[in-house]
Amino acid sequence: MFFHDKRLQYNAKPDRPDPLYAKKLQEVLGGQWGEISVTMTYLFQGWNCRGPMKYRDMLLDTATEEIGHCEMLATMIAHLLEGAPVSEQEAAVNGSPMVAAVMGGMNPQHAIVSGLGATPTDSVGYPWNARYTIASGNLLADFRFNVTAESQGRLQVARLYEMTDDAGVRDLLSFLLARDTMHQKQWIAAIAELESSGLETTPCPSSFPQERELSSVAYQFMNFSAGTESSEGAWASGTSPDGKGQFEYVTNPVAMGPEPVPPPGDPRLHGTNKPGLIDKIRGQG
Amino acid sequence: MFFHDKRLQYNAKPDRPDPLYAKKLQEVLGGQWGEISVTMTYLFQGWNCRGPMKYRDMLLDTATEEIGHCEMLATMIAHLLEGAPVSEQEAAVNGSPMVAAVMGGMNPQHAIVSGLGATPTDSVGYPWNARYTIASGNLLADFRFNVTAESQGRLQVARLYEMTDDAGVRDLLSFLLARDTMHQKQWIAAIAELESSGLETTPCPSSFPQERELSSVAYQFMNFSAGTESSEGAWASGTSPDGKGQFEYVTNPVAMGPEPVPPPGDPRLHGTNKPGLIDKIRGQG
Amino acid sequence: MFFHDKRLQYNAKPDRPDPLYAKKLQEVLGGQWGEISVTMTYLFQGWNCRGPMKYRDMLLDTATEEIGHCEMLATMIAHLLEGAPVSEQEAAVNGSPMVAAVMGGMNPQHAIVSGLGATPTDSVGYPWNARYTIASGNLLADFRFNVTAESQGRLQVARLYEMTDDAGVRDLLSFLLARDTMHQKQWIAAIAELESSGLETTPCPSSFPQERELSSVAYQFMNFSAGTESSEGAWASGTSPDGKGQFEYVTNPVAMGPEPVPPPGDPRLHGTNKPGLIDKIRGQG
Amino acid sequence: MFFHDKRLQYNAKPDRPDPLYAKKLQEVLGGQWGEISVTMTYLFQGWNCRGPMKYRDMLLDTATEEIGHCEMLATMIAHLLEGAPVSEQEAAVNGSPMVAAVMGGMNPQHAIVSGLGATPTDSVGYPWNARYTIASGNLLADFRFNVTAESQGRLQVARLYEMTDDAGVRDLLSFLLARDTMHQKQWIAAIAELESSGLETTPCPSSFPQERELSSVAYQFMNFSAGTESSEGAWASGTSPDGKGQFEYVTNPVAMGPEPVPPPGDPRLHGTNKPGLIDKIRGQG
Amino acid sequence: MFFHDKRLQYNAKPDRPDPLYAKKLQEVLGGQWGEISVTMTYLFQGWNCRGPMKYRDMLLDTATEEIGHCEMLATMIAHLLEGAPVSEQEAAVNGSPMVAAVMGGMNPQHAIVSGLGATPTDSVGYPWNARYTIASGNLLADFRFNVTAESQGRLQVARLYEMTDDAGVRDLLSFLLARDTMHQKQWIAAIAELESSGLETTPCPSSFPQERELSSVAYQFMNFSAGTESSEGAWASGTSPDGKGQFEYVTNPVAMGPEPVPPPGDPRLHGTNKPGLIDKIRGQG
Amino acid sequence: MFFHDKRLQYNAKPDRPDPLYAKKLQEVLGGQWGEISVTMTYLFQGWNCRGPMKYRDMLLDTATEEIGHCEMLATMIAHLLEGAPVSEQEAAVNGSPMVAAVMGGMNPQHAIVSGLGATPTDSVGYPWNARYTIASGNLLADFRFNVTAESQGRLQVARLYEMTDDAGVRDLLSFLLARDTMHQKQWIAAIAELESSGLETTPCPSSFPQERELSSVAYQFMNFSAGTESSEGAWASGTSPDGKGQFEYVTNPVAMGPEPVPPPGDPRLHGTNKPGLIDKIRGQG
Repeated sequence: MFFHDKRLQYNAKPDRPDPLYAKKLQEVLGGQWGEISVTMTYLFQGWNCRGPMKYRDMLLDTATEEIGHCEMLATMIAHLLEGAPVSEQEAAVNGSPMVAAVMGGMNPQHAIVSGLGATPTDSVGYPWNARYTIASGNLLADFRFNVTAESQGRLQVARLYEMTDDAGVRDLLSFLLARDTMHQKQWIAAIAELESSGLETTPCPSSFPQERELSSVAYQFMNFSAGTESSEGAWASGTSPDGKGQFEYVTNPVAMGPEPVPPPGDPRLHGTNKPGLIDKIRGQG
Repeated sequence: MFFHDKRLQYNAKPDRPDPLYAKKLQEVLGGQWGEISVTMTYLFQGWNCRGPMKYRDMLLDTATEEIGHCEMLATMIAHLLEGAPVSEQEAAVNGSPMVAAVMGGMNPQHAIVSGLGATPTDSVGYPWNARYTIASGNLLADFRFNVTAESQGRLQVARLYEMTDDAGVRDLLSFLLARDTMHQKQWIAAIAELESSGLETTPCPSSFPQERELSSVAYQFMNFSAGTESSEGAWASGTSPDGKGQFEYVTNPVAMGPEPVPPPGDPRLHGTNKPGLIDKIRGQG
Repeated sequence: MFFHDKRLQYNAKPDRPDPLYAKKLQEVLGGQWGEISVTMTYLFQGWNCRGPMKYRDMLLDTATEEIGHCEMLATMIAHLLEGAPVSEQEAAVNGSPMVAAVMGGMNPQHAIVSGLGATPTDSVGYPWNARYTIASGNLLADFRFNVTAESQGRLQVARLYEMTDDAGVRDLLSFLLARDTMHQKQWIAAIAELESSGLETTPCPSSFPQERELSSVAYQFMNFSAGTESSEGAWASGTSPDGKGQFEYVTNPVAMGPEPVPPPGDPRLHGTNKPGLIDKIRGQG
Repeated sequence: MFFHDKRLQYNAKPDRPDPLYAKKLQEVLGGQWGEISVTMTYLFQGWNCRGPMKYRDMLLDTATEEIGHCEMLATMIAHLLEGAPVSEQEAAVNGSPMVAAVMGGMNPQHAIVSGLGATPTDSVGYPWNARYTIASGNLLADFRFNVTAESQGRLQVARLYEMTDDAGVRDLLSFLLARDTMHQKQWIAAIAELESSGLETTPCPSSFPQERELSSVAYQFMNFSAGTESSEGAWASGTSPDGKGQFEYVTNPVAMGPEPVPPPGDPRLHGTNKPGLIDKIRGQG
Repeated sequence: MFFHDKRLQYNAKPDRPDPLYAKKLQEVLGGQWGEISVTMTYLFQGWNCRGPMKYRDMLLDTATEEIGHCEMLATMIAHLLEGAPVSEQEAAVNGSPMVAAVMGGMNPQHAIVSGLGATPTDSVGYPWNARYTIASGNLLADFRFNVTAESQGRLQVARLYEMTDDAGVRDLLSFLLARDTMHQKQWIAAIAELESSGLETTPCPSSFPQERELSSVAYQFMNFSAGTESSEGAWASGTSPDGKGQFEYVTNPVAMGPEPVPPPGDPRLHGTNKPGLIDKIRGQG
Repeated sequence: MFFHDKRLQYNAKPDRPDPLYAKKLQEVLGGQWGEISVTMTYLFQGWNCRGPMKYRDMLLDTATEEIGHCEMLATMIAHLLEGAPVSEQEAAVNGSPMVAAVMGGMNPQHAIVSGLGATPTDSVGYPWNARYTIASGNLLADFRFNVTAESQGRLQVARLYEMTDDAGVRDLLSFLLARDTMHQKQWIAAIAELESSGLETTPCPSSFPQERELSSVAYQFMNFSAGTESSEGAWASGTSPDGKGQFEYVTNPVAMGPEPVPPPGDPRLHGTNKPGLIDKIRGQG
């Protein structure tokens, strides 16, 4: 069950409106790596968590914080949209290239659909969808996703920081950047704790009996091109990160399987089978 | 530029057909964490790579291998679909609960749309889409995604391994499990190399000047619930993984921002504004 | 800013597992008219609300409650999935038609993707997307949507109630049905308040000057078929609900516009234009 | 079965081309609340209608009219796209900020994909999809949707009216506004008729036995925030619109359910369960 | 403008209900190659048609017929859904494998969402979307699509014919098969007419000056694999279908371009550039 | 199994950057008719091919070439994005209308999401999805699709050629145009070979016994409008392309079916049935 505090977690007011930037800022609200994504991801990971209670509580604490991040970005976007030019005629009167660019570049749905409010979409207007929510039931696989999400998210916030000089916007972004920094470290620490406790280790999932893998190819880097620049990295030789084996560089990988021969189709499905095949099968049918 | 070898990288033939399992196996071909996703992700990361050449070559080598994984799964699925019951009448004659279940549970598009061939969709028939392709231009953010992809992918393959006892299917899966193991280690090694070379470190992106963050909240875990189970983890106290600070547990986080007041709308957009507001603005307009 | 209470708003435990029903119940969690939809819709309506504060607060209170409804359904679904058959071999051993049906009918992603946890998808596995979130900035248009959402939602919950006899499931559904009943009335009352206060009336949006409409067709029902059954309803004659005019039944509507003649295309776009046209334009170009 | 009259229902020709406005106008053709949506919604409601014939006929009459609305908008959009600048070089020669803005702001698919024709997409180019079609089999739930659709649709047309001063465009919009006005009233009248005939009443669906709801919460407004602005509305006290009870304001709602404990996962799905759990289950398995 | 005739174009009643088949039949109503797709495709091609009037009229005539095909399929599906089992308990009492299979295999949205009515979705419940609508402004490119659509559509109807023995269903399908046959021939005849009139020829679009192509590769088949089975077809040697040249088989294609070197990124976007690059650029910035 | 050659198949470098054109060029990489679509389509057609080996080999040869086309376009797009303006402030300083237009018109995800790299999306930023992949198991149906794909694709490339005067871009496009020309002819030749060998003929699928069609409507063009312009084409009279019959023009088609009467709903699904119906059924239930 949840409760709402009417105040914002942090400031969310720009120095001046900027409808073009509002469109861009949507990316970190409703985009693939935006705040809705981490909200939903952490909520579902928390609700589905069967591990120790500290993980569940931690997931839901952070999920709950992220709802508040969505709230701040929605507020910021509404302020950025204030006074946006509504018609081309209005923009043409102005005559400024930048006003014209704003008219051409605004997300038209910010006017037509939401009436100058934020929308749960990304910077090209593509709606958020639940395939951005990852919750597998395996904490290591999911925490690795969470590190990624906070990295991609912080990268996008950093880019957006460079794309404006509005002090109010930058103030909010400096808060979000810091929280993303914290959350990157949080998930890295949680992964270390999972691994040191033996709950999950590499390769993930560690509960699958590794002897059932085809171990002969579990340490080989395969070079599928002419030239061997790819042999110069740590993944091509030396001890592997799990400490259990040596990386091997396969310069010329060879096929281990045969040329495939798909089974005959069912004549009732009217595909194109090999000549004569259809009649033969019909004869038997 | 690419070339094709007509042989498969490994064996891809089941001991017996199983149309219901064919539907499930689609997840690791055309699902979010399936082989198409890693193919496209590594291709775009490689094509967009501006880092040292060894990374670009390594990305494209592995991408090229993954196309061959798609090929094996497509071949396997076609074999699993062989002889699938086409009509309910056919299934009813049989009278077996499992044949009936297969009729009810098959992906109908395997018959109607593809004529018993594999499709680029997941286990519920949802089509693959390019939001599963991640290529940000930042190698650390992307390699973290790649570790995740190989973890989620290996988790799903492991689950599918448990869901059948067909030796032919398990043979292919044992190959894929081993390659996913290799690839998890490969990306972990690549991350270590990126970090040790100083190209990228935590917090990612490391080229963003950290002093522009709101540092006061960059080490705080915030507890947004009653109860403090979340304080029991490594993320709540002690030195943070970047070695630059101490985690702090905020038991009762307080709002740092004000109650938001959205700007007035534009009357020409006919939203519902505060009473009297529309007339006032019209009067001025 | 939001807070989490670890307890559920109401009970969410079935008497027994039922993986097939779990798949169906997903509809009211992650479907078009499910709890995620109302959560997101009310959040965005609240965050974008520029009307009197009581509306904003009411919207966010109810939005916050709905997050808790998602939580209960996610919990219920995890319980329903307990002990689901993982492999066909396991199901075949059992030999029961219903076990086989469950194997065929389960959402395979409940096993492969989420590890027997709830997912933000509907009963066919289609992911929730943000086009289900409606927030236009006009409170009457939006409250009318909200009445609809609570009607469609309650209809689906009622159907799901009939589709099981599990007392634990029905207990939760009886709670959700009652809340949907409350929320239908809440939005109806809010609409009445909007209208009586004059903030918005029919036709919505009421701030658009109605004299700019083509008033001659604003009261006409047009019969686009042979037969006049459609004349028997209240929409075809008598005083219209806004009290401003009389409905009129147009038995044989006639075209008021001309046959359209699309403008010539641009030859540089290589469409198929009328004979001779391309050459003529090229000659001028 | 359907027939086509080659003339348009009303005029659909602008005074002058305007490719940027063409992009915006797409919203009411192929957007969520556009003419394709009401066409498909009314067609499916009509085809699936099991109520009295007058409803079925009325639904299909209006659906058939809406196809003609799509036709007018498609025609208008083609005219607006006439003579659009094709290349940046062409736009740069012109040197006008507005021409440059048009070049930047046009939907590029209007040139590349459709050759200056209308497309079944919205104002950000997102394709129409059938989740915008609502047909539940319950006429009250659906007619409530229809009132919403005509309200959101009219709101968007009104906004688009304000966004241009082209008399030809405004002429068409004045027709669409009037028809949306009629259709709002039509559905309101139809709802009144449904309710007065007793076919459906609030709460919808009215055929579900209301005694099976948890009646104790069916009249309560729950305040999930500090502060009680939400108590000031008609939904918080007084008689409810169904006349059957009194609204109650719950200032401090309390959890009625327990803290959830998800069931243990299946070890074959390799999730992360509580320590020791996996081994125990494996020991029993 | 359109009109509705309340009668169906042909019969649409099965001999008996079959909810599982109803799910499958959805493919040719709301699937990629179903009746909604050809309806919308022909409507938009007709509305955007700038060629001779006979093409426009023909397109809209056929489009209008297809709306009626949607109507028949929707009617058929509603009949097939009659009396579908609603609950598992109901199905379990029956004890028949096929009833259980129906319970497991039905599209749950047919009960929960549409109340046993047809939906605008395909056989896996995926909603129809407007990317299935093709209208490019070039009649040859589009008529080629139309031949394809009628081929894929007829293939699916033929498969569905084989998947049932219900005489009523087969009666409707025999009508649809014949119309698809007619429409295949219609588009083939229209293509021949376009080509013989010189409006469009191969390669399409024929108005693009072919001398601007890199003619050296316009007749070459390139063999990107070991082995030359692909040389055995008519595409590998002999005169090409346009009669303007000879096909050539390139056994070992070689790269005609260089190894790519992507441009340096912008440091403000915080990608991972080549070592040293970031500092250098910052120094200049 | 696949291999990579690090060189490009052809040149892929523009004379100068052009971020707005980069956005447009995305259409032929990640759009519906772009290179990813033909890559995936030919791969799946090849992998699922059960016809003579020459078809399978030919499909996979061409599929493999297309991966290389994706590579060239991705490279070209990265070059076009070089030096794109990152902030409005930067663009405003410049003061040029075209720079402002670029700022307004760029795909913001090219900066925020991919760091100036290509993305697998189209020219409005909509992500590629697998419904663009067609592989039915019937070679004639699929080759007809392939002719279409190469026609629509070449049309779009031709349009993009006209939309720039950059010699480097045009050089690459001249290569792609020529390959599309070749591929159109290749599929036309392959269709001729299929038909002359008798493997598949019109109507497709030819293995379906044509006597099961309703032959009376298999040669009729139906005129669903007033006016008979549609009678002027080759599809309305004369011998049909299959040489088996005469086209017939039906000026006034009449309904061959009855007015539909949908079956009563199930009262447990709470739809709106005809008056009295619900009670009657409940009484019996």
